[in-house]
Amino acid sequence: MSKKRVYLFEEADGKNRLLFGGKGAGLADMTKAGLPVPPGFIITTEVCKEYYENGKKLPEGLMEEVLEAMKKLEEKTGKKFADPENPLLVSVRSGAPVSMPGMMDTILNLGLNDETVKGLAKRSNNERFAYDSYRRFIQMFGNVVLGIPHEKFEEILDHYKKEQGVKLDSELSAETLKKVVEAYKELVKKETGKDFPQDPYQQLEMAIRAVFDSWNNERAIIYRKLHNIPEDYGTAVNIVTMVFGNMGNDSGTGVAFTRNPSTGEKEFYGEYLTNAQGEDVVAGIRTPQPISKLAEEMPEVYKQLLEVRDLLEKYYRDVQDIEFTVEKGKLYMLQTRNAKRTARAAVKIAVDMVKEGLITKEEAILRVSPDQINQLLHAQIDPKAEKKVIAKGLPASPGAASGKVVFSSREAEKRGKEGEKVLLVRPETTPDDIGGLAAAQGVLTSRGGMTSHAAVVARGMGKPAVVGCEAIKIDLEKEQFVVGDVVVKKDDVITIDGSTGEVILGEVPMIPPTLSDELKELLSWADEIRKIGVRANADTPEDAKKAFEYGAEGIGLARTEHMFLGNRLPLVQEMILAETEEDRRKALDKLLPVQREDFIGLFKAMQGKPVTIRLIDPPLHEFLPPLLDLTVEVEVMKAKGITGKELEEKEKLLAVVKRLHEFNPMLGFRGCRLGMVYPEIFEMQVRAIMEAAVAVAKEGLPVKPEIMIPLVALESEMKVLGELIHRVAKQVIEESGVNVEYKVGTMIEVPRAAIIADKLAKVAEFFSFGTNDLTQMTFAFSRDDAEGKFLGIYREKGYIEEDPFEHLDAEGVAELMKIGIQKGRSTRPDLKVGICGEHGGDPKSIELCYILGLDYVSCSPFRVPVARLAAAQATLKHQKKMEFVDRTA
Amino acid sequence: MSKKRVYLFEEADGKNRLLFGGKGAGLADMTKAGLPVPPGFIITTEVCKEYYENGKKLPEGLMEEVLEAMKKLEEKTGKKFADPENPLLVSVRSGAPVSMPGMMDTILNLGLNDETVKGLAKRSNNERFAYDSYRRFIQMFGNVVLGIPHEKFEEILDHYKKEQGVKLDSELSAETLKKVVEAYKELVKKETGKDFPQDPYQQLEMAIRAVFDSWNNERAIIYRKLHNIPEDYGTAVNIVTMVFGNMGNDSGTGVAFTRNPSTGEKEFYGEYLTNAQGEDVVAGIRTPQPISKLAEEMPEVYKQLLEVRDLLEKYYRDVQDIEFTVEKGKLYMLQTRNAKRTARAAVKIAVDMVKEGLITKEEAILRVSPDQINQLLHAQIDPKAEKKVIAKGLPASPGAASGKVVFSSREAEKRGKEGEKVLLVRPETTPDDIGGLAAAQGVLTSRGGMTSHAAVVARGMGKPAVVGCEAIKIDLEKEQFVVGDVVVKKDDVITIDGSTGEVILGEVPMIPPTLSDELKELLSWADEIRKIGVRANADTPEDAKKAFEYGAEGIGLARTEHMFLGNRLPLVQEMILAETEEDRRKALDKLLPVQREDFIGLFKAMQGKPVTIRLIDPPLHEFLPPLLDLTVEVEVMKAKGITGKELEEKEKLLAVVKRLHEFNPMLGFRGCRLGMVYPEIFEMQVRAIMEAAVAVAKEGLPVKPEIMIPLVALESEMKVLGELIHRVAKQVIEESGVNVEYKVGTMIEVPRAAIIADKLAKVAEFFSFGTNDLTQMTFAFSRDDAEGKFLGIYREKGYIEEDPFEHLDAEGVAELMKIGIQKGRSTRPDLKVGICGEHGGDPKSIELCYILGLDYVSCSPFRVPVARLAAAQATLKHQKKMEFVDRTA
Repeated sequence: MSKKRVYLFEEADGKNRLLFGGKGAGLADMTKAGLPVPPGFIITTEVCKEYYENGKKLPEGLMEEVLEAMKKLEEKTGKKFADPENPLLVSVRSGAPVSMPGMMDTILNLGLNDETVKGLAKRSNNERFAYDSYRRFIQMFGNVVLGIPHEKFEEILDHYKKEQGVKLDSELSAETLKKVVEAYKELVKKETGKDFPQDPYQQLEMAIRAVFDSWNNERAIIYRKLHNIPEDYGTAVNIVTMVFGNMGNDSGTGVAFTRNPSTGEKEFYGEYLTNAQGEDVVAGIRTPQPISKLAEEMPEVYKQLLEVRDLLEKYYRDVQDIEFTVEKGKLYMLQTRNAKRTARAAVKIAVDMVKEGLITKEEAILRVSPDQINQLLHAQIDPKAEKKVIAKGLPASPGAASGKVVFSSREAEKRGKEGEKVLLVRPETTPDDIGGLAAAQGVLTSRGGMTSHAAVVARGMGKPAVVGCEAIKIDLEKEQFVVGDVVVKKDDVITIDGSTGEVILGEVPMIPPTLSDELKELLSWADEIRKIGVRANADTPEDAKKAFEYGAEGIGLARTEHMFLGNRLPLVQEMILAETEEDRRKALDKLLPVQREDFIGLFKAMQGKPVTIRLIDPPLHEFLPPLLDLTVEVEVMKAKGITGKELEEKEKLLAVVKRLHEFNPMLGFRGCRLGMVYPEIFEMQVRAIMEAAVAVAKEGLPVKPEIMIPLVALESEMKVLGELIHRVAKQVIEESGVNVEYKVGTMIEVPRAAIIADKLAKVAEFFSFGTNDLTQMTFAFSRDDAEGKFLGIYREKGYIEEDPFEHLDAEGVAELMKIGIQKGRSTRPDLKVGICGEHGGDPKSIELCYILGLDYVSCSPFRVPVARLAAAQATLKHQKKMEFVDRTA
Repeated sequence: MSKKRVYLFEEADGKNRLLFGGKGAGLADMTKAGLPVPPGFIITTEVCKEYYENGKKLPEGLMEEVLEAMKKLEEKTGKKFADPENPLLVSVRSGAPVSMPGMMDTILNLGLNDETVKGLAKRSNNERFAYDSYRRFIQMFGNVVLGIPHEKFEEILDHYKKEQGVKLDSELSAETLKKVVEAYKELVKKETGKDFPQDPYQQLEMAIRAVFDSWNNERAIIYRKLHNIPEDYGTAVNIVTMVFGNMGNDSGTGVAFTRNPSTGEKEFYGEYLTNAQGEDVVAGIRTPQPISKLAEEMPEVYKQLLEVRDLLEKYYRDVQDIEFTVEKGKLYMLQTRNAKRTARAAVKIAVDMVKEGLITKEEAILRVSPDQINQLLHAQIDPKAEKKVIAKGLPASPGAASGKVVFSSREAEKRGKEGEKVLLVRPETTPDDIGGLAAAQGVLTSRGGMTSHAAVVARGMGKPAVVGCEAIKIDLEKEQFVVGDVVVKKDDVITIDGSTGEVILGEVPMIPPTLSDELKELLSWADEIRKIGVRANADTPEDAKKAFEYGAEGIGLARTEHMFLGNRLPLVQEMILAETEEDRRKALDKLLPVQREDFIGLFKAMQGKPVTIRLIDPPLHEFLPPLLDLTVEVEVMKAKGITGKELEEKEKLLAVVKRLHEFNPMLGFRGCRLGMVYPEIFEMQVRAIMEAAVAVAKEGLPVKPEIMIPLVALESEMKVLGELIHRVAKQVIEESGVNVEYKVGTMIEVPRAAIIADKLAKVAEFFSFGTNDLTQMTFAFSRDDAEGKFLGIYREKGYIEEDPFEHLDAEGVAELMKIGIQKGRSTRPDLKVGICGEHGGDPKSIELCYILGLDYVSCSPFRVPVARLAAAQATLKHQKKMEFVDRTA
C-alpha cells in the first residue's frame, strides 16, 4: 500500500481534522506557524479504521513507517529512542476529529525501562525525577495497555507512603521510588504472567494499539451516542517528544485561554505551576498561579505566550484553549483547540470578534448555539453551588426555581399571590391549574412529556418546569412525595432545574438572567440575515409586551380560551349550561366586553404588528369540573345520605358533564366544530376582535388582526366559518364607520386539512401549522399519555431517535406539511404559512421549517431570541444549497 | 331557432331518455315496434330547461310546433281538437329521464269544454261518460293548473252525492253531473276570478306550463335530493290521444308486469278492470281481476298482450311494468318501463334472463344492487305489517329483531342463553358487553355512530342494531327508557329495524332470510368477473365457517382481543396485574394453549385459505373495570366506613387502573406499542399462531397464516416486531420439524404509516388498511363521540355529504391510502394490499378500493356476498376506463 499513514507535524494539514484528529491538527498548525512544538508525528484516523477492519490488527508496514518517523524525532532532538545514555521519551495520545475530553487514553514517558531510566537520571541530574517518571509510566502503561486496575498500583504506593510515614507522593525519595518500581513490575508479572516490557519499541507498538482500542471503550461509545459523533470517525494517535516542566524553578506547566471563557472578556486567562507536570495541576496538590503572575516569574516566556495567543486567535479566528510546558526556561506548546465557553462568553466573544474584524457577522451567528441563548434567558443554578439531586425528570422549561412545596393549585395561587415562594408539585396539570402555575416559582409533575400541559404552559410563561418525573411518588392526600427513601412534605423547600430536569433538596444559589447589549447586537445581525419571520405565541398583554421586547414580529398564536379562565369562568360556565340559544347568547353578551378588552391589550402591546387570534379551541367540558371528581362527589353524598338542594344542583351539573364527556377529547367536539354547532360563540369572539381593532384604530394606532380557525378538517368548515367571520367583521366595520384590514386563516393541525389544503386555501388567506396536534394525530400519540406509557421507553431503547413533540418529525409530520404547503400555494400563491406548535421555538425544527418554505415560526416569548438566532443559522446553513435546490423541494 | 322541440312518438329515439324522458321514450319505442300506442308526441326536456332559463316562459315558436303536431294527431285519429262534433281529447303527462312516480302532474281529458262535451256525448252515445269526463277534467285542471285545492271540488261532489242520496261517484246521473260541472266552473271563477278556460288551445298551453312547473314543486325537489337525481335534468311533456276503457264491457284498463316483481317467477302478472279508467283501479272502488282472467274475458286482447310482453322483454332485455287500456275491444299501450322489483325477484330475474340468453352475466350483475343482496341476508319486517314507530336511530346493522327490553348485558346474556328473546338497550356498549350482545336478538343504543362498538360488533355478528338513537332517554337505575311520552320498561317488547333505524313498539311480523340458488349462481358469476378479492373479518371458528360459506377467500382480519374475553378474562387480568416480567410470562403461559385452540379452529374453518391474524390491539385497561366505576366504588365504600380486605383489594386494583388510564385511548398505549414494551405478549401470540398452524399441518391440512401488526407508526416498530415474529416462528418450526409458510404484515391505520409506507414495506409483506382508525385520525373524529356531538349535525346541515365511517372518504383518507400504496409498492412491487376497516363491506368504498388498486377487501361475514357483487360491479364499471387509465392513478 502506497497510502501515507504517518505524518510528521510539519507534514500534516491542520485543516484536515477528519484525518489527523483535533489534537494532531492543532499541533501541526502550530508547528507550521513556527511555534515551539516538541517534535512529533501523527498516525491517521484511517489507520484506526484499518485496524478495526482487520480484526484489530495493525496494518502491515505501519510500524516501519512509525520507526522512520521516530528516527526523525531522534534527529531533531539529538536523543535516541531506547538509548541508555540519552533516551528519547515520548507521549502517546489519542486525538479524535471531535473532542472527546477524558474519554480515551494517553500514555506519558514512554521509552523508559530499567536501563534508560538511569540515563534519564544522569542527564537530568535528578534521580528522583527519573524514577518518579518511570513509576508513573509503569502505572499508566499497566493500567491503560495491560488492563491492570488502577487501585492495585495505588495500594502499593500507599504501602510505601505509610512505610515512610509521608502523605504526598512527592515526598517519596528516589530510593523508595526504586522500590515502588520493583513492586510495580512484580504486580505486572503477577497480573499478566509476563514481565513488564523492557523493549521501548514493543512498548510503543502496544501503546498505539491501546489508543486504537480505547476508541471503542464503553465510556467513549456512550459519549459518542450522547453527542451524535459518528462511530466510524476513528481516532488518530499522536506521538510527541516528552518535555518536562518539573525540572526545577525555571520549568513549569500551564493551561490558558486566549480570552476569559466565563465572561468573554478579552484578557489572557489561565493558570500555571512552576516545577510541575500537567498531572500535578490536575491533582490539585499545589494551588496554581494566575497566568498574569508568569509575567513576573518568567517575563520572557510570558511575552512569548502573548505572541502565541495573538497568533493563534488570528489563525483560528476563535478563542483558543492552550496547554504549554516550560522546560528549563524554554516554552513548548502542547495543545491548542477552540475553547469551550459559557453562553455569556460565547455571545460576547462572537460580537467582539466581529468588531475586531476577526470574523464576519455570519460567522458570529454560527458561533453561538441557540441553546446558549436559551441559557441566558433564564435564571440558572450557580454552577459552583453544592446540590443534593434527589430525582431527575424531563427538562421541560428552562431555568431554575426554589420554593416551598405545595400540592394544590389553589394553595399555590393564594400563597403565591401573597408573595410567598412556592413550588407547585402535581401528578399533572390541567387548565384549572393555570392560576397556581402563574403564582408558583415553578412546577414539578410526575406525569406528562415535553409537551404536556404543565410543560407547554410553563414554557409559555417562561417558568421553570420539570415534568414526567416518574421517580417521585406523590400522595396528594398526605401532601407529600416520596423518592427513594427521601420524603418531601408540604412546605419543605426544593429546587428544580428546568434546564437539566434535576430535582434538588433545599434551596440552591442562583445566577440571574441577563440580556446583554452584545446579545441584542448579535440578534440584530441575525434579523438582517434570516429569511423566515419570528412571531410569538402570547395570550395576554404582558406576554405580548415581553414578546415585542424580545423582538417578535407579531403574534402567531393568541389562544382565546386562556382568556376564559379565572374570574371569567363563571360566565363561560353559564354559557355552557345554557339550555337555549337565547340563554347562550345572553351569557356570551356578558363575555363580549371582557374579550374585547383582552384584544385591545394585545393589539396595543404589539404596536401594529400582526396579531393572529385563534378562536376558542378546547372542548367545553374543560371548563366544567371533571366527570370523575363530580361523580365521586355525588355518589359519596348519596352514600352519606345527604340530600337536598346541594345534591340536586350537583346532579344537574353532572348530567351536563356526562353529556359533554368524550372518550377521546383530542379527537372530539372542539375547535371549529364548536363554531359550526354554536355559531354564536364564534360570532361573539369575532365581534370582540373586530370591536377591539376598531377601538384601537380610533385612537389612531395601527392594528392588524388575523382571525384563525382551529381544527379545520373539512372544506365546508372553512367556507361556513369564513363567511361567518367576514359577515360579523363587515357588520362591525359598518357600525363603527372605521375600516380595519383583517385576515382570515386556519390552523392546519388535522392530517386531512393538509391533504385538502388546496380547497381550504380558497378561503384561508394564511395557514398556521399546529404541529402539536398534527404530531399527535399523525403518530396517533396522545401527548398527555405517550411519554409515561411507551414513548419514554421508545427513546430509551432507541426505537425513536427524538421526541417528535420536541423536534418536528421530518419523515412523517413534515411530509404532511409539505403536501399542505404545496397544495395551499397551488390555490393561493401568496398564501402566508407559519407554524405555531411548540416546534416553532426549537432550532432543529426551525431549520426544517425554513427548508419547507414557511414564512414564519411562532413560539413562546421566551424562545423568541432563540428562534431569531436559529432562523438566521438555518438561512446561513442552507444558503449555498439554496442556490441549487428549490427550498420547498 | 332551428332546434326541434316537438317529436311525434315515431320520430323520437327511445334510447335518448335524457331528451325524451322515460315515459316518452317507452311510448316512442312501442310505437316504432308497431305496438298499438295512441298517437301522441313529446315536448323535450330541453324545452323544460329553456322554460326555466327564460324565467318560466315557454320558448317562442313552441306552441306553433305543438299545434303542428296536434294536426298530425288529428290526421291519425280522424278527430279534431276543439271540434264540437268529434273532439280530439288528449292527456298531458310529465315524463322525466328518471322515474319519479307520483311526484309530478298529469292532466287527462284535455280538450273538453261546454261544446265539445256534447260532441263526446253524442259520439260515445254516453252522456254520463261525457259529463263525468268533463267533471274530472275541470277538477284535475283546476287543481293542477289553477292551484285550487282538491278538497273544494270534493266538497261540491259530496254535496251532490248527499243530495242524490248516493254513495259512489259512479252512481251520479248525467243530469247531476251537469250540475256538478256548473258548480265546478263557479268554483273556478270564484277562486281565480276568471272563467274556466273554454278554449282547448289555451287549456293545452296552460297544461304544458303546469307540467314544467311541477318539475320544481316541493315534493319533486325532495324526491330528487333523496334519490340523487340531478336538478338540471328537467321533464319532458307527453301529449297523448285519450283512449277510454270505460266505454262498456268490451273496454277496460290494467297494469301488468312481464314477470312476477315480487318473486321473479316468469309469469305474466297483473290486474285489470273492465269498463273502467286508470283512476278507478287506483281508487280501489272495485276489486281488479287477475290478468289471467282476461284470457277468458277478452281472449284476443290477452293473446295480443302476451305478444306485447314478449316483444317488450326482448327489446328492453328487462322486466317491464306496463299500462294498457282496451277501448271497445281495441288494445292500447299507454306505458312501459323497467319494473321495480323486490331483492328476491331482482336476483331471480337476472339469473333467469342470463339462462334465457336475454342478457349477459355482466348485465345480470349490474342488474342487482348490493343493497338488495344485503336485504336478502337478514330477517326483514314484513312490509305489510302495521307498526308503531316511536323513534329513529342510525341503521347500524341490517335486519330486524324483536325482544324483551333488557338494560344490562349480564342479564341479556343469562336470559338469552336460557332461550329467552331479549333485546339489549344500552347508552353504549363496550367489550364487556360482548356476551350480552351475542345472546340478545339485537341491540339498541342511545349513543355512538355507524362504527361505534355496538354497530361494529353487531354487524360482525350479523345481528340487528340501531345505534345513536338520541331520542330515547335511558334510565339504567329505573330500568326504563323514555321517548316523548312513551315509557318503555324492562321486559316490554320492542322491535328494531337495523335496516331503517326504526324503533317500534311491540312485536312485528318478520320475513326470514333466504340464500337462494339463484343468488349463489349470480355471485359465482361475480367471482369470475371481479378483479379484487373478498375476505372476511372473523374472530371465531363459527364466524369463519359462515364467512367460508358466504364465499370469503380468506380471513382479512381476525381480532385476537375478542379471544381474551369471557372465561379468559381472569387470565388476561392476571397478566396485566403481574408486577414482573416473570409473573407476566406465567399468566401468558396459561393463555397460550387457549389461543392456540382458537387459531386451530380458525385455520380449519378456512380450509387452507389465508388467515390474517392481528396481534392484540386494544389498550390493556379495556380488560379492567372502568376507572370511573371503580373510583366511585372505592369512595362510596370509604364514605360508608367499610374497611378491610375487600377495600384494600379494590384500592390495589384502582391503582393499576389509574396507572393505565389514558386521556385519549385511541391515541394511546395499544397495538404494537404493547408488543414493543411487553414483547412477551406478542411472543405468546405468535407462538400460539405458529403452533396452531403446525398442528393443522400435521393433520395434513393446508394452512396459510398471515401475522399482522397493528398501529404501526414507526419503522423501528415494524423492524423490531418483524424480527420478533420471524424469530418465534422459526423456533416453532424448528421445534416441530414442520415447515409452515407464513407472512408478516402490518395494518396501515396511523396517518404516519401511510407516509412512511416505503420503509415499512421493507419488512411487511402485506398491508391492510385499517380505515376505521385511519378515518378517525385523518379527520380527528372520535367515532365513539363524533356522531352525537357534531357529526350528526354536520350531516343534517349538509356540511358533510356522507358519514366517513360508512363510506371511505375519497378526498382525504383515500389520498393517504394512495400515498401508502404507491410508496409501499415502490419498495415491494408484489406487496399485497387489503382493507379491513368497516368500509370493506361498503359497495361505494369497494369501488374506491378497486380504483386504488387494492388486492382485496375484508368485511364481516354477512357482508361477504354484498362485497362479492359490489367488487364485480366495480370491475365492470371501470373496465372500459381501465383500458386507458392506470388503475392506481
